[in-house]
Amino acid sequence: MKVSILFSGGKDCCLTAIMLSKFFEVELITCTFETLSNWKKAEEVAKKLGFPFKVLKLDKKILEEAAEKIIQDGFPANGIKYIHQNSLEILAGQTEFIADGVRRDDRVPVLSKSEIRQLEDKFNIHYIQPLMGYSRKTINILVNKFFEVKEYKSFDFIGAEYEFELREYIKNKYGTGKIKEIFPQDHTQSIIVDIKEKIC
Amino acid sequence: MKVSILFSGGKDCCLTAIMLSKFFEVELITCTFETLSNWKKAEEVAKKLGFPFKVLKLDKKILEEAAEKIIQDGFPANGIKYIHQNSLEILAGQTEFIADGVRRDDRVPVLSKSEIRQLEDKFNIHYIQPLMGYSRKTINILVNKFFEVKEYKSFDFIGAEYEFELREYIKNKYGTGKIKEIFPQDHTQSIIVDIKEKIC
Repeated sequence: MKVSILFSGGKDCCLTAIMLSKFFEVELITCTFETLSNWKKAEEVAKKLGFPFKVLKLDKKILEEAAEKIIQDGFPANGIKYIHQNSLEILAGQTEFIADGVRRDDRVPVLSKSEIRQLEDKFNIHYIQPLMGYSRKTINILVNKFFEVKEYKSFDFIGAEYEFELREYIKNKYGTGKIKEIFPQDHTQSIIVDIKEKIC
Repeated sequence: MKVSILFSGGKDCCLTAIMLSKFFEVELITCTFETLSNWKKAEEVAKKLGFPFKVLKLDKKILEEAAEKIIQDGFPANGIKYIHQNSLEILAGQTEFIADGVRRDDRVPVLSKSEIRQLEDKFNIHYIQPLMGYSRKTINILVNKFFEVKEYKSFDFIGAEYEFELREYIKNKYGTGKIKEIFPQDHTQSIIVDIKEKIC
């Protein structure tokens, strides 16, 4: 059984990958609108983990619609969720088991139980969120057992998350000021820089 | 790191045990009010899985209070949740990592996110629900990969779940008719009868 995991190279999706690798053949999927090559950051981490890696190209229209949502809302949550939901739907059209690294304490991009069931029923697939039963605190303990992590402010580094292409798009269309107005300055992301312990 | 898992020998808690065994030293815990010896069913399964097993004795007052709740409500959900919450609290007073086999699609005995956070904060512990991000359908696929399962109607067999001591108590105090009135006739439980595949 193969599972396709939405993957940014951050700690949550890396832990997701090793959790599922006990039960599934793992494939890591990074989405891109091809406006940046930030997906390569995820590819580097996938190589370190030793799992197959694929890029999923998304229609730029999804990026534009997400950006317009964010401009209208004045905050990024719904726009990011919009991209996440579209990525899941596209993946669901291609494969039977899909997964991501959403945690119990996450607020974005979290689908409601009814949205999850709709996705599963519409495409007749399995959507797995292995970290949904773990707090942030518990996840950090497990992450630190297996990985060397670099945490960074999302204004100081470009990672492979959706957010970076979104920000780039909004910056080009509405200017840097808009980005600073909309996206929180203190939001941290993570990227795995090394594997401490090999997983069987 | 040791994790104590609430354990009945059913398929959900067995899958929970093997999922956590990759990250933790697993200990299986079955609760009893010592009115029946149904906990021995769980002990047999624990031996098959090869994990250490312990009985956690609960005050009979908890059983009585749960039963009164059920009589008042006319349905068992809140009474069962009451016992589950008490078991988690007692375990949380003894150990740092606790877990159970509650699934995404379960309605009973599910704690709300705010109840989960209260439990974690009050006792400064980690409460893990590894199956929370999996549907019943996905869990069944994984379970069938690893285990030989016996499914049974809960009126036809006595398992190690709280429900059986509860029913016995209510039957003795209020008669068999009350039990049939309150507990659903078509409710199924499961018990693991064999291990198909050894887990590393």
